[in-house]
Amino acid sequence: MILGNFIGFARSARGTVTFSSFNSIDGIARSEIFCEATSEEVIEACECANQAFVEFSQLPNRSRALFLRRIAELLQLQKENLQPIYCAESGLSPDRFESELLRTVRQLYNFAELSESGEWRNISIDTSDPKLLPPKPDLRKMSIPIGPVVVFGASNFPLAYSTIGGDVAAALAVGCPVIVKAHPLHAATSDFVAALVVQAAKGTGMPDGVFSHLHAQGFRVGTELVQHPFVKAVGFTGSHAGGRALFDLANKRKEPIPVFAEMGSVNPVFILPEFLQNEKEKSAEMLANSMSSGLGQFCTNPGLLFVIDNGDTDEFLQVLSSAFLSMGSSTMLHSSIKDRFDQGKLQMEIHGAEMHQSLSDTSVNFARQALGIIRSKQFVQNPMFQEEVFGPFTLIVRCADVYDFDSCIEVLHGQLSATILGSTEEIILHNQLVLKLQNKVGRIIFNGVPTGVDIAPSMQHGGPYPASTDSRYGAVGIDSAQRFVRPVTYQDCSEDLLPEPLKNKNLFNIVRRVNGVFTADAINF
Amino acid sequence: MILGNFIGFARSARGTVTFSSFNSIDGIARSEIFCEATSEEVIEACECANQAFVEFSQLPNRSRALFLRRIAELLQLQKENLQPIYCAESGLSPDRFESELLRTVRQLYNFAELSESGEWRNISIDTSDPKLLPPKPDLRKMSIPIGPVVVFGASNFPLAYSTIGGDVAAALAVGCPVIVKAHPLHAATSDFVAALVVQAAKGTGMPDGVFSHLHAQGFRVGTELVQHPFVKAVGFTGSHAGGRALFDLANKRKEPIPVFAEMGSVNPVFILPEFLQNEKEKSAEMLANSMSSGLGQFCTNPGLLFVIDNGDTDEFLQVLSSAFLSMGSSTMLHSSIKDRFDQGKLQMEIHGAEMHQSLSDTSVNFARQALGIIRSKQFVQNPMFQEEVFGPFTLIVRCADVYDFDSCIEVLHGQLSATILGSTEEIILHNQLVLKLQNKVGRIIFNGVPTGVDIAPSMQHGGPYPASTDSRYGAVGIDSAQRFVRPVTYQDCSEDLLPEPLKNKNLFNIVRRVNGVFTADAINF
Repeated sequence: MILGNFIGFARSARGTVTFSSFNSIDGIARSEIFCEATSEEVIEACECANQAFVEFSQLPNRSRALFLRRIAELLQLQKENLQPIYCAESGLSPDRFESELLRTVRQLYNFAELSESGEWRNISIDTSDPKLLPPKPDLRKMSIPIGPVVVFGASNFPLAYSTIGGDVAAALAVGCPVIVKAHPLHAATSDFVAALVVQAAKGTGMPDGVFSHLHAQGFRVGTELVQHPFVKAVGFTGSHAGGRALFDLANKRKEPIPVFAEMGSVNPVFILPEFLQNEKEKSAEMLANSMSSGLGQFCTNPGLLFVIDNGDTDEFLQVLSSAFLSMGSSTMLHSSIKDRFDQGKLQMEIHGAEMHQSLSDTSVNFARQALGIIRSKQFVQNPMFQEEVFGPFTLIVRCADVYDFDSCIEVLHGQLSATILGSTEEIILHNQLVLKLQNKVGRIIFNGVPTGVDIAPSMQHGGPYPASTDSRYGAVGIDSAQRFVRPVTYQDCSEDLLPEPLKNKNLFNIVRRVNGVFTADAINF
Repeated sequence: MILGNFIGFARSARGTVTFSSFNSIDGIARSEIFCEATSEEVIEACECANQAFVEFSQLPNRSRALFLRRIAELLQLQKENLQPIYCAESGLSPDRFESELLRTVRQLYNFAELSESGEWRNISIDTSDPKLLPPKPDLRKMSIPIGPVVVFGASNFPLAYSTIGGDVAAALAVGCPVIVKAHPLHAATSDFVAALVVQAAKGTGMPDGVFSHLHAQGFRVGTELVQHPFVKAVGFTGSHAGGRALFDLANKRKEPIPVFAEMGSVNPVFILPEFLQNEKEKSAEMLANSMSSGLGQFCTNPGLLFVIDNGDTDEFLQVLSSAFLSMGSSTMLHSSIKDRFDQGKLQMEIHGAEMHQSLSDTSVNFARQALGIIRSKQFVQNPMFQEEVFGPFTLIVRCADVYDFDSCIEVLHGQLSATILGSTEEIILHNQLVLKLQNKVGRIIFNGVPTGVDIAPSMQHGGPYPASTDSRYGAVGIDSAQRFVRPVTYQDCSEDLLPEPLKNKNLFNIVRRVNGVFTADAINF
């Protein structure tokens, strides 16, 4: 079966280069044949998206919400057909499928609600004051969609951060057409989902071009997409090398565009002595669970663990090590990802980390979990120890005291998150840790674990470079839609001509900042 | 008199390269000698800013506001000493000095109020729900300052967009230390203002390093500043060449940082036929005033004017031309700016614009106002006609009909603003113009002029590239402070440990989004 691209609503398979994806568990190629998008097909997808843009962005509030909800319904209706493809290509379990599908569906409903609420428009109105000198004009500002957006599927979230994942749903919610570059390792999953999105778009009357889906194995298609003048923003979740390459491409354009690359993180955990002493067993177990969750293939995996050497440390590490290393392993997302995992561990060893590995069977793409142990001096001197080893690996940094924590934070690269385990008293005592960490991360977790990223609006999933390319935005929750909008002000525009959200009567009861006050009231003169 | 740099509170003049600024009106060098910052001084300024960052960012709300208000007071107290320096260096009038000073002072008060209000923190709180599966954590998100910011002074606003102008005040308001690279053409004005800022910082107990001020004529100091790892963002107002160079430098860093460059615009004006017929005299006069305001040396100068050829057009152009070309001219900001202005006009002529110039005396750096006239076909075919000619020059594009407007908008580059002159009925009839223009600009003015940028919160001063490097932000009004902050989330942090703005009790009555609802209420369980 040859599966082509979607250029808007139409299947298109004009290229001659084809490829397959694989069953993760045995590495055998699957039966679907994917046809790589040609350069002409890339251009057509961009033109089609640009063509759809004005109409899509002008649709009434409810229409885009209807579209997103219809996708969610189709995903749930088709889940039994999707599940075997998802599990085979990714090696992820049926339970994980269920939870990721649920997350994807919830995200779609959240973004549908956002689209309807109009909250994303960030409306600010200053009414005129003709008595002032110079007279104060009537100014009404709202956010509008930025234009067509390109999204790259993520290897580790075939549903929630890929074809109709967070980035795509966020862009569609605010009226940006989307072109998805499918991840080749789960091309069949992506294709299946893309067909549902197209079906939903047709069924809810969206303009042709609101969504396209392109297959490719190498870098050409992605490069051409990011360089096309009609494309106005890029969403990416993946490696630092990949994210940085796209970022550099986009900034070299005649018209540079923003690239929102979420490039992973080692998510340091700092354990304070009192907590370690009192919660040895509990914290070791909690951490071991987080470290092995999803086989460490999460961007919030705790990959770095700072402990202070004292009478309790060896016992704690012993408990942690045996809990973590004895956990059952399973197959990684793909053999190439497992190869990189093994290379990463090797590098840690070569640079002097003391390694402890599990004895898992590695014959069928199973990962051997590992802990590395170094001293704070090594960490401070060698930035290589901050490299992410994607998979079930955590590096433990033994420190002499809390001041050693300070030195390590000083050299710490930007991170998605940091975690502090400590009693309230000892965190207050060492509050400088929190203040300094705050400037290195997007989220600080207290006495918990970094994995399990809630999709609530107050979540921040993003952080200073190299965690992400733009620390001012996140990739999770409704506020992530702010990446794909920009403000425009209407000056002295008559009520008849104003866009609906800016009119005095405030038909949709949007909370607006009117002369400095947040209110959902209409404006009365 | 040798004037050095400010490295924090201390004067420093260790370099051997010196330069002077000039009296704009006669081109004669002034008496002050400025000492260019050495590479070591650049590093010291960055280290000093970084050193001050954590303390400055943690100050109580009122402290930063006090600092900003003190600067405003000192500016007003010292205005009689500042005025002659300002007028001599810039060639701008005493009236302009008064209005620009007032704007600068108002901006400082606005940002002081913003700092106190806490509105810039964009607080979002989702309280926990332990009954859910998985349990919903307590998430509290707020914006924090991004780190030390470098600001480049603007040639055309020695006060309002330079040393303590909008960018600097915005950064300081949210807790970012600032290093100003003084504009060499008004180095004496800048130095005078910098001394007041340092005086205010000392007097209000700010940490040393909160503000530094470096002199230089060439590109070295700016380049070194933008490349320094402690610098986290850059503000710039000026030419496209300058802004793009800084943008490219910043993106090539190991850790890329945002550059907010506001690079000017030709601010197209579209005149619809009915309006032209009914308001011939009035609109010609209004436009001529806007075109000559500040001798065209504003980034919102209307440099492009689209008209439709019919029985009224020639008469309108006649009135406009004689009003504009007969207005008294005056000296431009600097002879180098006048040279570029003359070259720009020459290019328009070489490429086929029909030129009409005033007969002003050009012997003393006076500008000769000019109008160029082309047809829409020339505009569509030659992007050169979209180049900004900084100064009193406007290009008129004669179109056959409104559909010609459409074709011109299709190829239009990103702009700060666009203006539509038309009756409500004819704008409704041609609403596609507004919808298409909206995607090319940051602000649409109805039946007015683009100059006179109000500093209200609902103003948008920024636009798609090349108007600015990041269309998601503006450079005017309190929302411009959002360029210098990023969100951080506290997860499951106990009330005692939370930063004040995130605590349940909401001591400062900040409007916060709590479980999706905007409220200034405390959180009660």
